[in-house]
Amino acid sequence: MTSEFEFIDQLRRKFGKPNKRIVTGIGDDGAVIAQSSRKDMVVSADMLVEDIDFRLGWISPRELGHKTLAVSLSDIAAMGATPLWSIASIGIPQPLWEGDFLKEFYEGWAKLAAKHHLKLVGGDISKTPDKVVVDSTVGGEVRKGRAVSRGGARPGDSIFVTGELGGAAGGLKLLEAGAERTGAAAKLIKRHLMPEPRTEIGTVLGELQIPTAMIDISDGLSSDLAHICSESGVGARIHKNKFPVDKNLIALNFPDGDELALNGGEDFELLFTVPRYLRKDLRNKLAKLMVTEIGEITEGGKIELVNSEETQELKPRGYKHF
Amino acid sequence: MTSEFEFIDQLRRKFGKPNKRIVTGIGDDGAVIAQSSRKDMVVSADMLVEDIDFRLGWISPRELGHKTLAVSLSDIAAMGATPLWSIASIGIPQPLWEGDFLKEFYEGWAKLAAKHHLKLVGGDISKTPDKVVVDSTVGGEVRKGRAVSRGGARPGDSIFVTGELGGAAGGLKLLEAGAERTGAAAKLIKRHLMPEPRTEIGTVLGELQIPTAMIDISDGLSSDLAHICSESGVGARIHKNKFPVDKNLIALNFPDGDELALNGGEDFELLFTVPRYLRKDLRNKLAKLMVTEIGEITEGGKIELVNSEETQELKPRGYKHF
Repeated sequence: MTSEFEFIDQLRRKFGKPNKRIVTGIGDDGAVIAQSSRKDMVVSADMLVEDIDFRLGWISPRELGHKTLAVSLSDIAAMGATPLWSIASIGIPQPLWEGDFLKEFYEGWAKLAAKHHLKLVGGDISKTPDKVVVDSTVGGEVRKGRAVSRGGARPGDSIFVTGELGGAAGGLKLLEAGAERTGAAAKLIKRHLMPEPRTEIGTVLGELQIPTAMIDISDGLSSDLAHICSESGVGARIHKNKFPVDKNLIALNFPDGDELALNGGEDFELLFTVPRYLRKDLRNKLAKLMVTEIGEITEGGKIELVNSEETQELKPRGYKHF
Repeated sequence: MTSEFEFIDQLRRKFGKPNKRIVTGIGDDGAVIAQSSRKDMVVSADMLVEDIDFRLGWISPRELGHKTLAVSLSDIAAMGATPLWSIASIGIPQPLWEGDFLKEFYEGWAKLAAKHHLKLVGGDISKTPDKVVVDSTVGGEVRKGRAVSRGGARPGDSIFVTGELGGAAGGLKLLEAGAERTGAAAKLIKRHLMPEPRTEIGTVLGELQIPTAMIDISDGLSSDLAHICSESGVGARIHKNKFPVDKNLIALNFPDGDELALNGGEDFELLFTVPRYLRKDLRNKLAKLMVTEIGEITEGGKIELVNSEETQELKPRGYKHF
């Protein structure tokens, strides 16, 4: 059966040809639209569905508002752009309308929006038969021609990732297990429920023009690295012992921390590639922003995972909707 | 209980203050964002939910793709803007993924997009537990400062509407009654399932700068006129005998054609106001594009409906989600 990614590829071939105004259409974290002689606009949308992407028993309306916006902010960051405006569409069943659900949802949204200096400018409120569904659209700006696509990685480039990996997937496991929200467990659960988009570092990377390719880790490192490789026509080699595994996973002695860092989704860290000779420059310029070098881009299309004992071919095992 | 419109008003007061870049935020057909020294961007989003806004037994995937885009194109037209790009997010249950539903949905979307010279640039595909949900976002452009809001109507202005009214609501009634899709009935059903957004006339009106206020008729004339009046701080008087009732309703002897024209939703015609002295100019410039004068803006906040026998106060009785 066609995968979600194959279907999107078909859409792109059929309808997604760029033109004079559409710089990048279907198939990246965000679309890039020529805006003025100095700026391009970047726009991205994400839908979250109750009982597929979230459970109301686990996430509060405020957290859901935060997360919905965070997911799209992460896409804007992955293009190297700075967010400017957002639109929230939400469908809820009648009983939730009668309570404070919507008010709190928008408060969660607005709080994160204020933190990242962007505005809620509109949306749509619909009734649904029984489930909650949310869709967010965020628009941002980037200097003309500086949006970072998935398609520019070159053999020899170093592969970097921001922050720590696997925490959001660990948090989900803890929620599923009914763990108490204390200590390291609470921090992991918060990573799952209220991800922090990498807006600042995304903007800086876009300005620096150092990355050759970038994506946000929404499906999982193995899948998102595969997207960069396939778009760039290259392979990659990453080293398991270099993964910045979430320290709260380690604190809780999670048995499969490496596995969660590799295939767990929704960390919303940025994965990007940098020409080898610019690695030092990158470190100097990012100063305190945490990034970790985890491998390098190779020729050919193969993606390899280097363990201490062996090197194996890495298949994308991240999240799939279908 | 708070109505949908009251809630949106609360959101606007709380989060929707315009700033240097956000010209118009929450509370109009689209948000207006300053883009360059010559252009503003207009963006709008709409969510449609299965069994609330459409039934899969009545609408084909292609028609749904068309309608989802049409609804947002209509908002862009109501701002006097020209559409440029679109984003489609869709959630579908597993069984529909396995068939041609998505392929046909996007074909319907793309066909209408091509007709109006805009591009599909992205979106999101999600799984849902059982219902289909779609959310569309469309971005357009307008000359700087020329976006037409709901808030500029002045006492004495003439009220105009494009095309014919009540047809979409008549089509819905025919679908509910299980009518055969032939002759005038087929045309009414098509108005409901595949509305034609008034992109051309919206663009022309924005360029001419003749309208003082504009909205699209999505909820119904009585409700949408009330939005213009409340945003503009004015009243209105409209004349029942001037309504351009859909000729297919008349052909089928619909007993409540006037009522459908007044309160039926989803016609996606444009309702706009024009200074009295510019009425002739408008007619000359619109040439063959059909518009009908149905009344005038008055002082105070009251909206009146003039029948042959009497004048009565008009309450908004259009569509409400909540």
